[in-house]
Amino acid sequence: MLKRLLITGANGGLGRMARERLGHIAETIRLSDIVAPAPAGEREEVVVCDLGDMDAVMSLVEGCDGILHLGGISVEDTFDKILNANIVGVHNLYEAARKTGKPRIFFASSNHAIGFHRQDEYLDASANLQPDGLYGVSKCYGEAMASLYHNKFGIETAIVRIGSCFPEPVDHRMLATWLSFDDFVSLVECIFRAPRLGCPIIYGASDNDLSWWDNKAARYLGWRPKDNSSRFRDKIEKTVAKPPADAVQSVYQGGKFVADPIFE
Amino acid sequence: MLKRLLITGANGGLGRMARERLGHIAETIRLSDIVAPAPAGEREEVVVCDLGDMDAVMSLVEGCDGILHLGGISVEDTFDKILNANIVGVHNLYEAARKTGKPRIFFASSNHAIGFHRQDEYLDASANLQPDGLYGVSKCYGEAMASLYHNKFGIETAIVRIGSCFPEPVDHRMLATWLSFDDFVSLVECIFRAPRLGCPIIYGASDNDLSWWDNKAARYLGWRPKDNSSRFRDKIEKTVAKPPADAVQSVYQGGKFVADPIFE
Amino acid sequence: MLKRLLITGANGGLGRMARERLGHIAETIRLSDIVAPAPAGEREEVVVCDLGDMDAVMSLVEGCDGILHLGGISVEDTFDKILNANIVGVHNLYEAARKTGKPRIFFASSNHAIGFHRQDEYLDASANLQPDGLYGVSKCYGEAMASLYHNKFGIETAIVRIGSCFPEPVDHRMLATWLSFDDFVSLVECIFRAPRLGCPIIYGASDNDLSWWDNKAARYLGWRPKDNSSRFRDKIEKTVAKPPADAVQSVYQGGKFVADPIFE
Amino acid sequence: MLKRLLITGANGGLGRMARERLGHIAETIRLSDIVAPAPAGEREEVVVCDLGDMDAVMSLVEGCDGILHLGGISVEDTFDKILNANIVGVHNLYEAARKTGKPRIFFASSNHAIGFHRQDEYLDASANLQPDGLYGVSKCYGEAMASLYHNKFGIETAIVRIGSCFPEPVDHRMLATWLSFDDFVSLVECIFRAPRLGCPIIYGASDNDLSWWDNKAARYLGWRPKDNSSRFRDKIEKTVAKPPADAVQSVYQGGKFVADPIFE
Amino acid sequence: MLKRLLITGANGGLGRMARERLGHIAETIRLSDIVAPAPAGEREEVVVCDLGDMDAVMSLVEGCDGILHLGGISVEDTFDKILNANIVGVHNLYEAARKTGKPRIFFASSNHAIGFHRQDEYLDASANLQPDGLYGVSKCYGEAMASLYHNKFGIETAIVRIGSCFPEPVDHRMLATWLSFDDFVSLVECIFRAPRLGCPIIYGASDNDLSWWDNKAARYLGWRPKDNSSRFRDKIEKTVAKPPADAVQSVYQGGKFVADPIFE
Amino acid sequence: MLKRLLITGANGGLGRMARERLGHIAETIRLSDIVAPAPAGEREEVVVCDLGDMDAVMSLVEGCDGILHLGGISVEDTFDKILNANIVGVHNLYEAARKTGKPRIFFASSNHAIGFHRQDEYLDASANLQPDGLYGVSKCYGEAMASLYHNKFGIETAIVRIGSCFPEPVDHRMLATWLSFDDFVSLVECIFRAPRLGCPIIYGASDNDLSWWDNKAARYLGWRPKDNSSRFRDKIEKTVAKPPADAVQSVYQGGKFVADPIFE
Repeated sequence: MLKRLLITGANGGLGRMARERLGHIAETIRLSDIVAPAPAGEREEVVVCDLGDMDAVMSLVEGCDGILHLGGISVEDTFDKILNANIVGVHNLYEAARKTGKPRIFFASSNHAIGFHRQDEYLDASANLQPDGLYGVSKCYGEAMASLYHNKFGIETAIVRIGSCFPEPVDHRMLATWLSFDDFVSLVECIFRAPRLGCPIIYGASDNDLSWWDNKAARYLGWRPKDNSSRFRDKIEKTVAKPPADAVQSVYQGGKFVADPIFE
Repeated sequence: MLKRLLITGANGGLGRMARERLGHIAETIRLSDIVAPAPAGEREEVVVCDLGDMDAVMSLVEGCDGILHLGGISVEDTFDKILNANIVGVHNLYEAARKTGKPRIFFASSNHAIGFHRQDEYLDASANLQPDGLYGVSKCYGEAMASLYHNKFGIETAIVRIGSCFPEPVDHRMLATWLSFDDFVSLVECIFRAPRLGCPIIYGASDNDLSWWDNKAARYLGWRPKDNSSRFRDKIEKTVAKPPADAVQSVYQGGKFVADPIFE
Repeated sequence: MLKRLLITGANGGLGRMARERLGHIAETIRLSDIVAPAPAGEREEVVVCDLGDMDAVMSLVEGCDGILHLGGISVEDTFDKILNANIVGVHNLYEAARKTGKPRIFFASSNHAIGFHRQDEYLDASANLQPDGLYGVSKCYGEAMASLYHNKFGIETAIVRIGSCFPEPVDHRMLATWLSFDDFVSLVECIFRAPRLGCPIIYGASDNDLSWWDNKAARYLGWRPKDNSSRFRDKIEKTVAKPPADAVQSVYQGGKFVADPIFE
Repeated sequence: MLKRLLITGANGGLGRMARERLGHIAETIRLSDIVAPAPAGEREEVVVCDLGDMDAVMSLVEGCDGILHLGGISVEDTFDKILNANIVGVHNLYEAARKTGKPRIFFASSNHAIGFHRQDEYLDASANLQPDGLYGVSKCYGEAMASLYHNKFGIETAIVRIGSCFPEPVDHRMLATWLSFDDFVSLVECIFRAPRLGCPIIYGASDNDLSWWDNKAARYLGWRPKDNSSRFRDKIEKTVAKPPADAVQSVYQGGKFVADPIFE
Repeated sequence: MLKRLLITGANGGLGRMARERLGHIAETIRLSDIVAPAPAGEREEVVVCDLGDMDAVMSLVEGCDGILHLGGISVEDTFDKILNANIVGVHNLYEAARKTGKPRIFFASSNHAIGFHRQDEYLDASANLQPDGLYGVSKCYGEAMASLYHNKFGIETAIVRIGSCFPEPVDHRMLATWLSFDDFVSLVECIFRAPRLGCPIIYGASDNDLSWWDNKAARYLGWRPKDNSSRFRDKIEKTVAKPPADAVQSVYQGGKFVADPIFE
Repeated sequence: MLKRLLITGANGGLGRMARERLGHIAETIRLSDIVAPAPAGEREEVVVCDLGDMDAVMSLVEGCDGILHLGGISVEDTFDKILNANIVGVHNLYEAARKTGKPRIFFASSNHAIGFHRQDEYLDASANLQPDGLYGVSKCYGEAMASLYHNKFGIETAIVRIGSCFPEPVDHRMLATWLSFDDFVSLVECIFRAPRLGCPIIYGASDNDLSWWDNKAARYLGWRPKDNSSRFRDKIEKTVAKPPADAVQSVYQGGKFVADPIFE
């Protein structure tokens, strides 16, 4: 059990779920976002923090032995916003970690770091990076930063390329990318429980019948997801139009992000 | 759901089972064989067709948006017969598909396209071709034809190297090669349901404990077979003599086909 | 079913369990150890044998069509002891096998043949040897001997790199290495039942969530372990101190053996 | 040195060069084509033969211990022509070989068996087949036939995927695919000289700076091409328009064949 | 031949050499740096430009059909400097390229993007990123940016992980990493001459006996370096102390960069 | 330059050549064999030593910073002889190395450690062990011992699987396996000169056209052999009968060793 787990991006969908479900992982949960999270409950701390502000991040990280880094921009956006939160912000986070006790980090990378891979490719941790937007590029950068701070300073990071973490899959593409909340929680547990983490790349998806990703390289962590998107298949097929064979949602792992323009 | 699914080889063992089990896949099922299939039932059409006859095949394929190609010679035979049905016939089928709406195709290839691989090799879709007879050679040819028409004309084919699709496994080799009827049906469903199929190579076998084949390259289709030959192991061991260690049934994936002569 | 199965090392932990559980595999079980095993029961024979004694081993092997070779030194020890039992002894065993009917052999190799691999490596049968002590070196030697006698004389051996075969896992490392007794028994059954064995390398571990080893290359034998160490995780976490991240138990697959000195 | 080498397709460009350059390889050279080759010189025999005629092929092959099979259709053509010469013809050739002494065969396959691979893929012998036309499909079939007759009957074939065998490269694509006449000759020598040939796949290209193909899997034959297309680069750049980046000549290994229609 | 080649970083060592040696590649060479380069000669243009200034970069790139991007920070430095030149600057460069004719780009990446790989690893283009400092991280980011703009907008980039481009190698590590000026020039020629470039990763090193890098994946470009560091070995061994076996210069590909601190 | 290089097996063919050619590598060369080598010349020491005698080996190794271990049995022989020299002897050598300054070791392993691989396999350092006799098994053991003492104690060994080191190749198989004396010498130089050696596996063969072995994994040592067996091909073809296609010399890398019986 951790002493203090920092959850960044606590106001996001994933952050709110994490807050609700991960209380057992640490004595204290410190929750941060750029706008104020809901008031602190028992064993909680709440912090407003712009990740682009080095001093603020230093204070934020101080005293934590674990970080669940969900913060920053999580969809395609303008370069300026991504630069501040995901480039400068991640640098600040790792610098703070280096200077304040080297907490273990769960880095929420994204399938959009490899989004230009086709859906008929079955990827493992050795797949080359193929980002599908500036957001994806920022995640590639973050993965490189994690690698550097692991090799050079021994800071351990789980690089988790999250698929689609929602209550249930809601379109055809999510039949592959869905990560259930339960499986997310068990993944976080595995990452912070392992005697030695290292700096693995993990695809964040449940045990879906339809799959593009192979996590065998992370079997040493003991994570075995239990949920399967296939029980939602009928519902999706009834309620969602099947995308055409040549639509980006049918061709590329990154789905619609692949077709996003550069935001200006 | 398809508008019209053509099932060739409708009089064969597999064809009859498919007819019985796949009614839900298309509004109309068109059934063909070189001798007349049983009379058409509801939502069925019945056609007598020699696959070696281009004009007949053109008419056969017209109006179909899916083809389950089980037709042609399915065991070792004389070159002339294989030539007509599996070489000329497959050419006719793809030409007809190209000219009549580019239906999606399930091509029943065979483990005999890779039958000279040893049983202690664990193959995936990248295994090199090692046919075990003229029949196997014709399946290699058919796979090449499928690849060509996909790359050049966008016609999608699932190349399914079927193991042994029977009600139950009946000898030691089938402990590896058995494909249950249920798993066959779910495979057909996956293939015709996928938003985008491409031209994958799939080994048609159930989730047997004893296995030579890895379908991870086709995980993007979401097929996860459920049956397992091992529940028939005791029965087989009691009723079938175990083949000697150096018998072709024990050495090669193609089993007895490997020892077939050239039929003249 | 075998006519006569020889179990060497019958007095060891594994040997005693095998004696208890494997009675159904052969008409007669011949049990040997360097000190006398418990008196022979029904369909049992008991032999005292120093594996380093060629004549004794020749008599021991005579008349057996299967050997479960658990004998010899099974932990790090002085070179002299390892030399006698595991180097000379294994030579004697294979020479005896060559001269007396070529029984099929289960060779208890060990994870200590690959113990210097890191825990974050996921190994399959093609992993290079990295022994973690003189004991591990002797197992590499035994594996080479098995390969030679297979290639040259057709003697079949299953090279089983046993993890930790105990009633239950008792520390963090065993969450990966645990092989349950039931899974051990089913593995032995698969090995002696296969029409053709060859000379496969198999990692002897249950279907644990936490895993370093991939047995896909041996899927042709039909072994699918059923047990999972994870049901003991809570107990271990409550009763055993978690090893530090840089302890050999956390870094290397061989665990504490890696830190053993050369015994003199 | 061979007793009698059969060269099929002796009237083609490659055939005429082979006739001129390979006299030293066999005591007698038998030259065949569908139209009469130039009259036989010393140690030569000339035969007119339609490869689609089994009896004629049987006579043709009789008495030969080596075959350089350059015959058949060598560009995209109608299915009927390809069927006769490359499908039926190759079957006839292998059947004749099986029945008349099992001569060693150089099978002129083609880069068009893998022509839909992109030029930025570096292929070795394990590349999957991706034919770029019916001609390419017929070469895939021929390769499968060679594999079958090797595995089943021990007939050895070198499957040579010839690039562009001309006096010199004449366009940008040939900078990769060029096989000089000298290197062709040395390859034929290696193939017929080796104590054991087996059934290797070899890419027929010189030691060009620009390359898509890796022949390391055939290093056991000792062939090391000496020529390099790069000495013709300046000439090509001055005389041939550079193809656009998205032209088939710039994208696919098969070049213009990829854009060929189905000939009817 | 290009119409106008932009060389950024024209005042650096590599930039000055490129200016001197690459006049034949374009009708006009535009030279830029953050401080003024030497006055423009014939067919030259000179521009002072801060890469972090989007408008300036837009003007800089306008009218160019090729870019040799050597500019930015090229050693470990403070995050702020790297951020401006290598993060913001590379974004500006690719945005300008997207908006002004999509010139082909030579992106000077660095061995420091993979500097934490050990020297006894033989890497090819599929090696995972292991940056050895913030500079290396910025190069990983630049490679991701190049990939994105290629996949999304068709801008072609050669990602060249330059080793050590100097007149001659001057220490033991450079026996592996040396890229001669001649080989640099021939590489630039290959990159801008190819009908189709794509987005390859190329290791920028000469044909040194001592090598860590395999460029086979870029063989389609026809680059075959000619120089070999080994002719300088004796000189180095006489004049430079051999580093100890456990020094970073002996262990890691990135050499001394691996031991750099974070600059503040 | 080494202070003192120990050459074991100094009376063997390889040992005598090494003595003649390697004087420049160390200030003093210590030469040992089980029978007395020729009297010591300048900067030489001569020792008679049975490798099976631990005390003698301890004295032998004392004071050496490099060992060229050519000693022991170098062809198939009785188990007892191999046991003493190659099993016990190698253990003694590594124990002595561990206790006396950890000299760097060139361990003469052999192609007979992988001799049951077929000649049409192209092996690199990751090939699995397939010894072709008890001698080959002892080399597998020696390689395991080298790995252990490197991982556990930091003793560096170059494991050199020597092919056929003779003045010239004298049969067809040696066209692949030949290692010229010059290339042997340059290899020894590379091994003792490298700042860091590690524990690489190297195939000891010249740059022969005909090759079964790929040394790319050892490119970090800078060894590039210069000789080529092909200049002896004509001589061999004229003077040596070509082995039949199914002779062990034509099938297996180990050649005639593969057919050796167990010596008793």
